[in-house]
Amino acid sequence: MKLYIVGVGLIGGSMMLDLKRIGDFEIIGVDKNEEHLNTALKNGIIDRKGSINDISQADRVVLSVDVKSAIELLPSILSSIKENALVWDVGSTKEKLCAMISEHPKRNQFLATHPIAGKENSGPEYAIEGMFADKIQIICESYKTRDDLLEWSKSIFISLGMRLRFMEAKENDSSMAYVSHLSHISSFMLAKTVLETKKINNILDLAGSGFESTVRLAKSSPDMWAPIFQQNRENVIETLDVYIHNLLNFKQYLIDKDYQSLHEQMKTTNTLTNILNRINKNK
Amino acid sequence: MKLYIVGVGLIGGSMMLDLKRIGDFEIIGVDKNEEHLNTALKNGIIDRKGSINDISQADRVVLSVDVKSAIELLPSILSSIKENALVWDVGSTKEKLCAMISEHPKRNQFLATHPIAGKENSGPEYAIEGMFADKIQIICESYKTRDDLLEWSKSIFISLGMRLRFMEAKENDSSMAYVSHLSHISSFMLAKTVLETKKINNILDLAGSGFESTVRLAKSSPDMWAPIFQQNRENVIETLDVYIHNLLNFKQYLIDKDYQSLHEQMKTTNTLTNILNRINKNK
Repeated sequence: MKLYIVGVGLIGGSMMLDLKRIGDFEIIGVDKNEEHLNTALKNGIIDRKGSINDISQADRVVLSVDVKSAIELLPSILSSIKENALVWDVGSTKEKLCAMISEHPKRNQFLATHPIAGKENSGPEYAIEGMFADKIQIICESYKTRDDLLEWSKSIFISLGMRLRFMEAKENDSSMAYVSHLSHISSFMLAKTVLETKKINNILDLAGSGFESTVRLAKSSPDMWAPIFQQNRENVIETLDVYIHNLLNFKQYLIDKDYQSLHEQMKTTNTLTNILNRINKNK
Repeated sequence: MKLYIVGVGLIGGSMMLDLKRIGDFEIIGVDKNEEHLNTALKNGIIDRKGSINDISQADRVVLSVDVKSAIELLPSILSSIKENALVWDVGSTKEKLCAMISEHPKRNQFLATHPIAGKENSGPEYAIEGMFADKIQIICESYKTRDDLLEWSKSIFISLGMRLRFMEAKENDSSMAYVSHLSHISSFMLAKTVLETKKINNILDLAGSGFESTVRLAKSSPDMWAPIFQQNRENVIETLDVYIHNLLNFKQYLIDKDYQSLHEQMKTTNTLTNILNRINKNK
């Protein structure tokens, strides 16, 4: 089975390493970044390089590019593929992508997927085996995909050890604004705040693991994240409003020297502990 | 040598486990939380329970309580100890504490220390050996401590594997506002924002390791942190102002659909990558 991976980065690369293990795929890499392709070839992520122009030969296509490029590429990829071929995307936002191809004649040969996996690093050199084990796989609008292609996809995801969740594209996007996109903005702006201080060179030496944990995501790729924020603009603005409101509120307690309210607020927030422990267990 | 540990929590408990390994100490635990004392005794963190009223028998005292209690307890502890005894505190804020005892007749039997170590969990049940290896130990106003007691302290910290940094109390507090206290507020408020959404039960299942990383510190103890924010109020308000300004700015780019500026801002922030890698290496 010819599998075209379009975008050989961290996610696409890791997924190919796993797919090689569980199925009989010839994996053909397509990427506008020639260096990424070379790395992928060297590290055994792909079997050979290919071109987007030959995608009509594909039995399966995994579209693993930033969400802006995905929107640009998906319609023509869908138009090019043969009758029994299937395309997955793996991006973080789904509403605009799904809306755009909702009337495409080959809509039922596409499955919108969102694996909740990744790291702050990007590029095929960071690809690892087993990245998707025990991870959530969000599948959007599954009822719009042809039954046989959906069933095949599910069996693959289950072989990768993933836990499947089915939802509308809209729900994926609004949920991700809270549990992923806001975390990234918070981290980027925290890093920016610290980088802007005059004494940056003196203080970072003093940073501990707590600081590191909260700014880890600030290492993420702007090429990947700017398009995500763009496509999920309304939801992200909404979550940012609530977050900024909470920070202003916390600051006001400090200004008012209302340490009792400060304490109560943190106490309430501690209830996240149990939930986080659950996440940890499921990781 | 009789060592009184006042406050047998995560930091104090971990420190005792290490000190037992490197020196000949009889470790006496003092804590208003009887359960913590029992745990500490059971886990071999302390040799026996003691009382704050017997502290005049101590050769060494480690004051490892929240920074509000530290301010309440330190003057009378200092007044009680014998001539060659020494007291360390280990709290996150130093300016108010050092100012308060600057004229104390036994000021030179006190050393203000701030080990950059810890976890989001609290209590002696989480105490571990080796917590301080390769960690920074900030020592404030070292010149105010008697030479022999300072030299003894340094040799102990070095035996624990710590890297010593000397600075004024003021510098500790202003630096910590940026690389520690703001991270905690950011994390607490991020957790609060997510907890407030109506669909909290549906979305947390979808959270990945990125979310977990940014809200990890929201598990921290309000009893420990409310007093830190209180004592470092002015610095924390200043950093919060910059942070909120940056978030508002980011939101404005989204409102204006200025994705180019959004991208550039994240790109600049990426420079933290190298610094973070350095922190990682030093951990």
